[in-house]
Amino acid sequence: MPVGTRGAVKAITHRDLEELGAEIILGNTYHLFLRPGADLIARAGGLHRFIGWTRPILTDSGGYQVFSLATMRKVREEGAEFRSHLDGALHLLTPEAATDIQAQLGSDIAMVLDECIATPATLDTAREAMQRSLRWAARARERFRRLQDDPGQIAVTNPGQAQFGIVQGGTFPELRTESVHGTVAIGFDAYAIGGLSVGEPPPVMYDVVAHTAPLLPDDSPRYLMGTGMPDDLFECVARGIDMFDCVLPTRNARNGQFLTNAGLLSIKNARFAEDQSPPDPGCSCYTCRTFSRAYLRHLYMVGEMTAATLNSLHNLHFYLDTMRRIREALVFGTFEKLRLEFHQTFSRRPRI
Amino acid sequence: MPVGTRGAVKAITHRDLEELGAEIILGNTYHLFLRPGADLIARAGGLHRFIGWTRPILTDSGGYQVFSLATMRKVREEGAEFRSHLDGALHLLTPEAATDIQAQLGSDIAMVLDECIATPATLDTAREAMQRSLRWAARARERFRRLQDDPGQIAVTNPGQAQFGIVQGGTFPELRTESVHGTVAIGFDAYAIGGLSVGEPPPVMYDVVAHTAPLLPDDSPRYLMGTGMPDDLFECVARGIDMFDCVLPTRNARNGQFLTNAGLLSIKNARFAEDQSPPDPGCSCYTCRTFSRAYLRHLYMVGEMTAATLNSLHNLHFYLDTMRRIREALVFGTFEKLRLEFHQTFSRRPRI
Repeated sequence: MPVGTRGAVKAITHRDLEELGAEIILGNTYHLFLRPGADLIARAGGLHRFIGWTRPILTDSGGYQVFSLATMRKVREEGAEFRSHLDGALHLLTPEAATDIQAQLGSDIAMVLDECIATPATLDTAREAMQRSLRWAARARERFRRLQDDPGQIAVTNPGQAQFGIVQGGTFPELRTESVHGTVAIGFDAYAIGGLSVGEPPPVMYDVVAHTAPLLPDDSPRYLMGTGMPDDLFECVARGIDMFDCVLPTRNARNGQFLTNAGLLSIKNARFAEDQSPPDPGCSCYTCRTFSRAYLRHLYMVGEMTAATLNSLHNLHFYLDTMRRIREALVFGTFEKLRLEFHQTFSRRPRI
Repeated sequence: MPVGTRGAVKAITHRDLEELGAEIILGNTYHLFLRPGADLIARAGGLHRFIGWTRPILTDSGGYQVFSLATMRKVREEGAEFRSHLDGALHLLTPEAATDIQAQLGSDIAMVLDECIATPATLDTAREAMQRSLRWAARARERFRRLQDDPGQIAVTNPGQAQFGIVQGGTFPELRTESVHGTVAIGFDAYAIGGLSVGEPPPVMYDVVAHTAPLLPDDSPRYLMGTGMPDDLFECVARGIDMFDCVLPTRNARNGQFLTNAGLLSIKNARFAEDQSPPDPGCSCYTCRTFSRAYLRHLYMVGEMTAATLNSLHNLHFYLDTMRRIREALVFGTFEKLRLEFHQTFSRRPRI
C-alpha cells in the first residue's frame, strides 16, 4: 500500500497511482484528524469523496504518529494524551476516539489503537504495552460494533468498513503468542502485526514474523505494518504476510534513491551525470521507459519537483510490480525460485 | 508555450503536458547553460533527447535571465558579462555564444541575444539598447548561418533549427518601427516582440503590440515574449500575435492561484474549506473533473507537492484551451464574439 499520509501520496496524482496498479492506499488518521479534521471530511462524505479516490483506503489508528510525532504524550489506561506537533493543542486519543474518527473518515479498513513502545524494550515494558493494547483492542471492537448498530452523533461514512486488530509484543515470542490469542479471541475482520520495522535488525523482524504469522487465522489477510525494504517483502511473504505498507518507496524517491532489482541507486551520484541509460534497465515504468539517469540526476540536483514525481513513480512501480510477481509466483508454485533470483541481484548496499 | 525553465515544466510530467495538448515548450538557455551545461546536453544528443521530450522546443537566448537573475553584469558591445547567480562564476554571453549554445541544445526555435533594459526607460536608453540589439542580431544571424555551413567545434544537434529575431524599442513607437525594419532587413525565420510584460500597464503593452505587430511579415508567426494574463492573450491576438510564453500559469498555480474563465481564484481562501465544487465548474481538465476546492485547499495548506501539480494542470489546461478556442474562433470568424464573452466573465480582480 502506497502511503498517502495527508490524503495524497506525496508527489503522485491519483491517476498515476491508478495506472501503477495501486489497489489500495493508506491514510494517516493522525494527520487527517489535525488537518483538515475528521468532522470536515465526514461532512464531505468521507475520505474517498473528499480526496477523490475511488479504490480502497486503509487508515491507521493515529497511534503511531502520536508516539513518533506529537511533542508531548502521556499514556494512561483511558488513552494517549498528546500535543499536536503543529500547534501544541492538547488532544486525547482513546480506542473509542480512534474508532470514531476512522468511522468518520470512512476508510475501507480501520485499525485499532495500540500502544507503541520505544525499541529495544524490556520484557516487562513490552508485556505491559501488549496487554494494554489488548484491552484497548477490546474497547475499540466494542465501539466499532456499536457504531454499526447505532452511530448516534458519529457520521459513519462507510457502512462496509472492516476493522483489523493489531498483534504487539515486541521481539518476545511468548508475548506475540499471547497477543495473537487475545486479539483473535476478540475477533476482528483481519489481523496486523505491529511494533516491527522500528529499528530492529531484519533477521530479528523475520524471526518475529515467522513466529507470529502462522498463529494468525489463514482465512483473512495478514498485514505487516510499516515494512519495508524490497527484500523484506520476499522474506515476510515467505513467512506468511499478505499486506504491507511503507513510506520507503516514496520517501527514498524524494531523497534521490531508486530501488531496483539490482539494489539501490542514488541518482545524485556524479557518475550518473552523463549516463544515458534508464535508472533500472529492466523496468517498464514511465520513468524508466522515458528518461535517462543523466536527466533524472539533473532534475534532482537543480531541485525540480518533477524529480520527486518521476522517482516516486519508479519506486512505487517497483514495489507494486514486485508484489505482483510474488503473487503470480505463488499461484504458479515458483515463489522459491523467484525469491532466490531476487536475492542474487538485490543488495541493500549501493553498488551501481 | 508552457515554460520548462530547466528542462522540465515545474511540477508537471511530460506525459501530462502531452495530454494537455502542449505543442511546444520553452527552455531557458541561461539555466541550462549553467546546469547541467550545454556541452553535456550536446553530448547527450541535444535537449530533446536529454529531457525525453519529442515535440518542439523554443529556447530563449539567455539574455533576459542575465539581466534579471545574474548578480553582476556589464554590457559592452561584445556582449553581456555576468556572474552566475549560483556560484558567482564569471561568464561572457555574446550574440555568437548565445547562438552556439542554442545550436548545442538543438531547440527547434532559437532566439537572438538582445539587450534588455530596466523599465520605464528614457528614449535615449531605449534607442541605444534597441540599436545594440540590432547589431547583436546581425552578428547572431551571421553566426547561425555559418554554423549551418560549417559548425566547426560546435555540436549542432538539430540541423533544422529556426532562428527568430526580436524587436525591441521599449514603449516608443518610432523605435519599434526602426527595430522592425532593421530586424526584418537582417532576415529571420520569424520575429518576436521583446521588452514588454516587464511592468508596464496592460494598455501600454497593447498599444505597443498594436503598433508593432502589423509591421511584421504576415507569413511567419509573431511571438510576444513573456506575456501574460489570460485577457492579454485575447487582446494581443486581436492585435496580431500568434505565439506566447509565460510562467504565470505554472508559477501562480504553485502559489495557489487558479486562473479561470471567471477570473482568479485563490485556493487558500478559508471560504473554500468545505466547498465541494471544482475549482472551475466549466472546466474539463483532470483537476476540475476529479477534485473539489476543499481538497485542493487542504493540499495547498498542508504543503503537499501534489497541490502544485494539480493546480498547474488546471492553469495550463486553461491557457492552452483558451488558445485553442481562439484559434477555432478565428477559423470560424467568431473571434470578436468570443473576445466579448471572455471579458464579460473574466476579471483580474479576485471575486470568487
